[in-house]
Amino acid sequence: MTVTVAIDCMGGDHGPDVTVRAALDFVRRHDDVCAILVGIEDRIRPFLDGAEEPRLVIRHASEVVAMDESPAMAIRAKKDSSMRVALDLVRDGQAEACVSAGNTGALMAISRFVLKMLPGIDRPAICAALPTASGHVHVLDLGANVDCSPEHLVQFAIMGASLVGAIEHRERPSVGLLNIGEEDIKGNDVVKRAAELLKDSGLNFVGNVEGDGLYEGVADVVVCDGFVGNVALKVSEGLVQMLALFLRQEFSRNPLTRLAALAALPVIGRFKRRVDHRRYNGASLLGLRGIVVKSHGSAGVFSFGSALDRAADAVRTNVLARISLRMDRQARQRVNQESESI
Amino acid sequence: MTVTVAIDCMGGDHGPDVTVRAALDFVRRHDDVCAILVGIEDRIRPFLDGAEEPRLVIRHASEVVAMDESPAMAIRAKKDSSMRVALDLVRDGQAEACVSAGNTGALMAISRFVLKMLPGIDRPAICAALPTASGHVHVLDLGANVDCSPEHLVQFAIMGASLVGAIEHRERPSVGLLNIGEEDIKGNDVVKRAAELLKDSGLNFVGNVEGDGLYEGVADVVVCDGFVGNVALKVSEGLVQMLALFLRQEFSRNPLTRLAALAALPVIGRFKRRVDHRRYNGASLLGLRGIVVKSHGSAGVFSFGSALDRAADAVRTNVLARISLRMDRQARQRVNQESESI
Repeated sequence: MTVTVAIDCMGGDHGPDVTVRAALDFVRRHDDVCAILVGIEDRIRPFLDGAEEPRLVIRHASEVVAMDESPAMAIRAKKDSSMRVALDLVRDGQAEACVSAGNTGALMAISRFVLKMLPGIDRPAICAALPTASGHVHVLDLGANVDCSPEHLVQFAIMGASLVGAIEHRERPSVGLLNIGEEDIKGNDVVKRAAELLKDSGLNFVGNVEGDGLYEGVADVVVCDGFVGNVALKVSEGLVQMLALFLRQEFSRNPLTRLAALAALPVIGRFKRRVDHRRYNGASLLGLRGIVVKSHGSAGVFSFGSALDRAADAVRTNVLARISLRMDRQARQRVNQESESI
Repeated sequence: MTVTVAIDCMGGDHGPDVTVRAALDFVRRHDDVCAILVGIEDRIRPFLDGAEEPRLVIRHASEVVAMDESPAMAIRAKKDSSMRVALDLVRDGQAEACVSAGNTGALMAISRFVLKMLPGIDRPAICAALPTASGHVHVLDLGANVDCSPEHLVQFAIMGASLVGAIEHRERPSVGLLNIGEEDIKGNDVVKRAAELLKDSGLNFVGNVEGDGLYEGVADVVVCDGFVGNVALKVSEGLVQMLALFLRQEFSRNPLTRLAALAALPVIGRFKRRVDHRRYNGASLLGLRGIVVKSHGSAGVFSFGSALDRAADAVRTNVLARISLRMDRQARQRVNQESESI
């Protein structure tokens, strides 16, 4: 089976300079993928450097969604934007996934408008992987939903578990609930009620996970509302940047420390690769009738390539069908429980 | 003026072994402080090693609040606990501050019960300093209040600004609101309304701060609800632990990397001291009619000493009076605004 990915080539801080180069690299790395380069043809073609790649095609789209454009405006006024056209291709079955480094709010809104939600899912959620002491953890929601009900958190759990089950071939990934204490009595009402629902969900629910547990890797999937998830993600990014700055400052303090830096360089290099956020680039927008992956706006070629890989992986492992199946099972279980309690 | 600190010697993971040694060190480091060692006398005395310190006195208290005890039980059933007696000493004017490494929930509840709140403040908040690229930032609330109204966030801002104004001698510390975007339209309803109130508060409000802005040092004080604050704090702790583990693993991989570690040791040492969480130990419980500082439960002697220093500093710089003054001014401003609008 060939996987076709529609790429919004105009999105992100660097546009085609990054997206087209990454697409070229993507089709060269994988025999089973095709890419549709969506955007302003005249701006895309130069970056192909005349390369003849039968598995790369350009699909012209005349408009571009700006990084600061309101989602509502992007839906209404830009029907021929690269983002919209890429999502249309997924809806029409010409591509199996869409990848964009553009405006997150617009991508969420247009995805929802064009692709619609999977049955039983109220809202899309943003899910990404973070490194942990023992591997990595998938966290959602990372910012799509600022207010969530307990039921939304359960839907996130089902979607996250389905994703991890698919791409990591795990039967029953463990699911944790981000909270401010491990005991059941901790947290706000939404989180307490979500814990009760998760216990009865049939998922492999391991209970509350505190902030520090996230990076200990105590669960494969951790769910939270989008406000908390976004803060946790950005606080982590900010902290890593600060520590990197401090490390650079200390190593460049004087000739002696610069010598030490030389000696430590290979070690620091390995260390950096291990926590390299570029390897983790590509957040899945889950809950839609189609695979949509959001790349960091500032992504470079390597980083955008990770997002493309992530999208192809989700197609190959049939993530959508797994989420639907899980939601079905959940609905049947609820019906059974209700009929039993009559 | 002498500053007298009542120390709950039985709290924390290590009890008197840490608290009493830190107290000895504390009075030796500062000429202007006294310490009242509160707890089971027979368990405290051995750690004094027969030292004659006129500025250290023992106040026997027969009970101990367990680390996992419910706050309600601690209030009702343990009227002679070291924690309770230390707070009683503050209420009765025999000490100006209380420091404890014990059960956070119990310390919050007993403090509120014994000391009562300052006029105009509804709830106490936990405030601590975190290092940033340019200095440090005081963040509150870090876990006392899981649900907050916009008005609570404004009270936190006033308390945080008063604390920073006092201990850092700053006239108008900048105050930010933790949010998931810098634009006004971002965030949930509570945060949006809080931003409006903060704009009219007379504080030096600098707007929304994203998670990564926290460690960039874009504001002196950052306010958030206790759920988000606690997650941000613990995620940071967990991330630092994971990075330290990775660094150790990489440096101990083989003889060559161990040699590199030797060369890099002084640099890594300086780096570690710079982000040493022990220097930042001691969270203030703000909003009470008395100074209460909570030490990390696992604190060692150095770390607990930082918490003692923090308490003495808050007394010397008159934090309580500053918060009261600020609240007064706020109340008058509100009355004026209301009378103008009639």
